[in-house]
Amino acid sequence: MPKQSLPLRLDFQSYLAERQRFVERALMRAVPESGQGFRLLSEAMRYSLLSGGKRIRSIMALAACEAVGGTAQDALGLACALEMIHSYSMVHDDLPCMDNDDLRRGKPTNHRVYGEAMATLAGDALLTDAFYVLATWHTPRVPAEIALRVIAELACAAGSAGMVAGQAEDIESEGRALTLEQLERLHGRKTGGLFMAAVRGGALLGGGEGAALEALTAYASAIGLAFQVTDDLLDVESSAEQMGKRTQKDGARGKATYPSLLGLKRSHELAQQLKQKAIAALESFGQSADPLRALAHYVVDREV
Amino acid sequence: MPKQSLPLRLDFQSYLAERQRFVERALMRAVPESGQGFRLLSEAMRYSLLSGGKRIRSIMALAACEAVGGTAQDALGLACALEMIHSYSMVHDDLPCMDNDDLRRGKPTNHRVYGEAMATLAGDALLTDAFYVLATWHTPRVPAEIALRVIAELACAAGSAGMVAGQAEDIESEGRALTLEQLERLHGRKTGGLFMAAVRGGALLGGGEGAALEALTAYASAIGLAFQVTDDLLDVESSAEQMGKRTQKDGARGKATYPSLLGLKRSHELAQQLKQKAIAALESFGQSADPLRALAHYVVDREV
Repeated sequence: MPKQSLPLRLDFQSYLAERQRFVERALMRAVPESGQGFRLLSEAMRYSLLSGGKRIRSIMALAACEAVGGTAQDALGLACALEMIHSYSMVHDDLPCMDNDDLRRGKPTNHRVYGEAMATLAGDALLTDAFYVLATWHTPRVPAEIALRVIAELACAAGSAGMVAGQAEDIESEGRALTLEQLERLHGRKTGGLFMAAVRGGALLGGGEGAALEALTAYASAIGLAFQVTDDLLDVESSAEQMGKRTQKDGARGKATYPSLLGLKRSHELAQQLKQKAIAALESFGQSADPLRALAHYVVDREV
Repeated sequence: MPKQSLPLRLDFQSYLAERQRFVERALMRAVPESGQGFRLLSEAMRYSLLSGGKRIRSIMALAACEAVGGTAQDALGLACALEMIHSYSMVHDDLPCMDNDDLRRGKPTNHRVYGEAMATLAGDALLTDAFYVLATWHTPRVPAEIALRVIAELACAAGSAGMVAGQAEDIESEGRALTLEQLERLHGRKTGGLFMAAVRGGALLGGGEGAALEALTAYASAIGLAFQVTDDLLDVESSAEQMGKRTQKDGARGKATYPSLLGLKRSHELAQQLKQKAIAALESFGQSADPLRALAHYVVDREV
């Protein structure tokens, strides 16, 4: 896909780097090295939480908050909670009883370093602590009712009606043929929910409502799917070295993916269409939504 | 221990049965059979969540709420969240990589029925959904600020500074000698935290503050420890048939327990002292705290 379609390319790179540092610093506070708890547990949590990562979900939450007039600080608790929940889901997904992966972001997976028991507990703690951060890191301008609503939306997106359901269905459907519709529903839960909670949550914390919130919901819906289609494509088209994790594993396991259902060419077209759809949803926003527009390009045109 | 020390014995039995039904019905709504998610996941969640259990934590939350003038309904979301978190922790603790248990409440453990992957996910979903319930099941008389505070206290009690830390420390300390002080700290996290969150959370939701909240905090502190001492005693003195789970396992694993550190007689005395301490903390309360007093007897004098 033509890389020149990415606007603000240079500026966006520094924006991204700056935001990644901003989120990273906050995450270090959210899971302190010498916490009140058990030192080895904190270490295992930090091993996965602070192992890099693009931080797309959290940066999207900050950008959505700012798009409606909030400050990045207003959504910082949500940003951390999103990364903590994303991180826990990776740690548990990598476990021997799940995907049994040895490599994540170019490093041994959590259970390869800390053992299965500690990895399970580190995931549990990251998930639980995410809600602690969400319930306590507030700026005074966010009403408590809004904070509660954001907790509810994130828990819904991550729980038995969302991400965990998607993961369970994914495991159960291995080797089974899925229709495009079934695949879309599965990914809507497994991946889309967190993007939705990121963008809507950020918008709510920034004071967004009505038509603005609706537009951002449409953006999130398209971008969540675009992310997954692109992930499926990267799994087929990239090497393990580039990705820092095992690739080509979906095909090996007989998992239905967009490339397997649509072919490479149509999957690329779909990703581009979803990107355009996401950007079109931001029409009523001015410059304040430029980061969200650039993030849409980034999600689809990224190389890892 | 003399059973005649339990006041209201007959009334308490029907109170307990009525409250267990009340909580059970709410839990069925919290995790519906045909949820929005994946059917097999809901089934696995319900298998463990609705497999009986004494419901002590949740009933204590309702009782604390009523002790300060709230209604049971005000604390029903918290009651469900406590049972969901307690249930998730059992499902994960029973996993092969943790305690590797086959039996829980007289039935095969979750992973023996649904496999390790689904059991891990069922635990994850129960934990996540607990926060959804907590953030959405409110009566209008509970201010949003209070609801947020209860979420924070429960997440803190259950997360990396609380229950999960206790579990991690417990696993790591197997076969190591602990001092009484270390054992108390470990159990304060592993078991005590949820009792604290139950009683304080219930009190907060019922409008409790100041001296009343402090008194209930002292009650919770004593009762959480009393519960653990009694659990350790039951593990030594009961059969697997009575308990519905494997017993004598602490000793077999070289885990430090109250009986192993203090002996049976002094452990029984300690449990009775803690019970008296818990009841003494309720001195300033009238009849509204009778259920909490009866629960203190029940926690220590129970046979399972």
